[in-house]
Amino acid sequence: MKIALDAMGGDDAPAAIVEGAVLAARELDVEIILVGDEKEIQKELSRHPAQGLPLSIHHASQRVAMHESPSSVIRKKRDSSIWIATELVQKSQAVAVISAGNTGASMATALFILGPMTGVERPAIATSLPTLKGTSILIDVGANVDCKPQHLFQFAIMGSIYAKEILGIPEPKVGLLSIGEEDTKGNELTKEVFKMLKASSLRFIGNVEGRDVYTGGADVIVCDGFIGNVALKISEGLSDAIGQFLKKEITASPFAKLGYFLLKPAFSRFRKKVDYAEYGGAPLLGVDGISIICHGRSSGKAIKNAVRVAKESHIRGVNRLIKEQIEAQMELTSSKEEGSPRG
Amino acid sequence: MKIALDAMGGDDAPAAIVEGAVLAARELDVEIILVGDEKEIQKELSRHPAQGLPLSIHHASQRVAMHESPSSVIRKKRDSSIWIATELVQKSQAVAVISAGNTGASMATALFILGPMTGVERPAIATSLPTLKGTSILIDVGANVDCKPQHLFQFAIMGSIYAKEILGIPEPKVGLLSIGEEDTKGNELTKEVFKMLKASSLRFIGNVEGRDVYTGGADVIVCDGFIGNVALKISEGLSDAIGQFLKKEITASPFAKLGYFLLKPAFSRFRKKVDYAEYGGAPLLGVDGISIICHGRSSGKAIKNAVRVAKESHIRGVNRLIKEQIEAQMELTSSKEEGSPRG
Repeated sequence: MKIALDAMGGDDAPAAIVEGAVLAARELDVEIILVGDEKEIQKELSRHPAQGLPLSIHHASQRVAMHESPSSVIRKKRDSSIWIATELVQKSQAVAVISAGNTGASMATALFILGPMTGVERPAIATSLPTLKGTSILIDVGANVDCKPQHLFQFAIMGSIYAKEILGIPEPKVGLLSIGEEDTKGNELTKEVFKMLKASSLRFIGNVEGRDVYTGGADVIVCDGFIGNVALKISEGLSDAIGQFLKKEITASPFAKLGYFLLKPAFSRFRKKVDYAEYGGAPLLGVDGISIICHGRSSGKAIKNAVRVAKESHIRGVNRLIKEQIEAQMELTSSKEEGSPRG
Repeated sequence: MKIALDAMGGDDAPAAIVEGAVLAARELDVEIILVGDEKEIQKELSRHPAQGLPLSIHHASQRVAMHESPSSVIRKKRDSSIWIATELVQKSQAVAVISAGNTGASMATALFILGPMTGVERPAIATSLPTLKGTSILIDVGANVDCKPQHLFQFAIMGSIYAKEILGIPEPKVGLLSIGEEDTKGNELTKEVFKMLKASSLRFIGNVEGRDVYTGGADVIVCDGFIGNVALKISEGLSDAIGQFLKKEITASPFAKLGYFLLKPAFSRFRKKVDYAEYGGAPLLGVDGISIICHGRSSGKAIKNAVRVAKESHIRGVNRLIKEQIEAQMELTSSKEEGSPRG
């Protein structure tokens, strides 16, 4: 199984990407194709004991900057590392593409080159969140800012399959992110989605509020990409702010410094729990191929974990399952609608 | 100046409300009207040295439960403490109403009895958030789940006046909560609001992302009530989750326990910083009167701080300023639109 890595994308590219590639090739029984500037990649590779590992380089002359607009990438960057890596999937020369670069560009190239699978109206980004009980999936976290009810309904289906196949949760509980637990609470969009989810065969547990996200009551939390993105980024910002505030307090007194020293193992375990590097990136579910988007700050370990997720997604046939279930659920919903009393 | 308190609303009512009333009457040079069950309030009052303080009781025979729907309150609870307290404002027998009870009911009674001020399309709830730099205002956090651009524009005006008059920030910086800093990022709603804010005389600093909320770059952060509510509650939930996780880690080892002991002052200062009790509740801005909604868990101190905010709002004429500025900004925006080239 071959997996294409965008070697030039990410705050610490190509170093972190190459490091991840080496780790993955060594540990995960996959072949890695590093896509990007051949010389730079070669140079990074020479720092690692990579002889004999199933690693190859595929040259790409361009690279996409962090703030380049997706439309300019589509127009002008067709020899960029992300573009070429995505093309490898489209040509069946790789089963998955992974990038820690410009998120908008990764999404746009996947949508443009691979396209949505039959039946999927809007591919969506699913991210893993640490909770008090384990890990939950939040979908969508930014691919779709203006959504219709059926889009969120499909996000729920895709998120459930991902939670089952990749997180290993047998019957994932699906919650709808809203502003009150009662059925009638929410905005126009969520009220419609609520009805669709209730009529579906998914394990729908109703609305979940913002304050329930981190308790882990729902395994899959569904929302539009605007809300999901704000929710995710506000969480990152708040964690950082709490960390910075405590740090300032801690360095203010010698007692606190000693206290911090004694608490350090606890803090590290906490950091490990919320560390995105522990999770394997965020898949763009619903495209015809496997596309995984990693945090710009991804370390080698984070990249390796993304490769693991890509491999698992391929082995478990996540995309085939999504296609089948979307068809089945859509039939179920439309037949229920037809059968419902007029009024 | 008389301020009406809903004595029966809140997780710890009437005890916490009466305690807050006594503190406010003693310290803030205001007269407090405690509205609710006379006997119960009397009993609570007897626990405090309240003789000679400017405190009175206004009997109300009903109370609103935490999960009662606003519509049922309007239909069936016209002798409830929140209803009667709000009526006191409408009859000019009090300048403000404060409740820590059912948020939906407080909002509905204020909208029904006091109504929006002339020019204000949608009153909105403004809440204070602790940031790395101080305090910011997030508006709206739940009054309006489906918004039009002009609603968010008015939230920006109201939030700015509140930040200036109550937080004492001379020229509040206004940010629009969105999913990217660039002008063009956002959903259909925020893109329209962006243009309106840019054309206004407010100190608009552009889009702010979720991760910037707690850095304090913007003094006023504008969003619709659905997003605001999710943002606020996800923050509460995440803080709780971090606290619970650290607690578990800390009690797991004697070293960590000692470390925690040494760090305790730092943790308390942190808790004080994020403690909603330090802030004076969340005003429902834009109604014709002053209505302040407090957290259900409000302590006596939180209630006292809400009384302080109500008093300041009255003295500084926040409502008059809102009315004037909404008129002025609306004229400015419409004249700019008329003057813009056709296309």
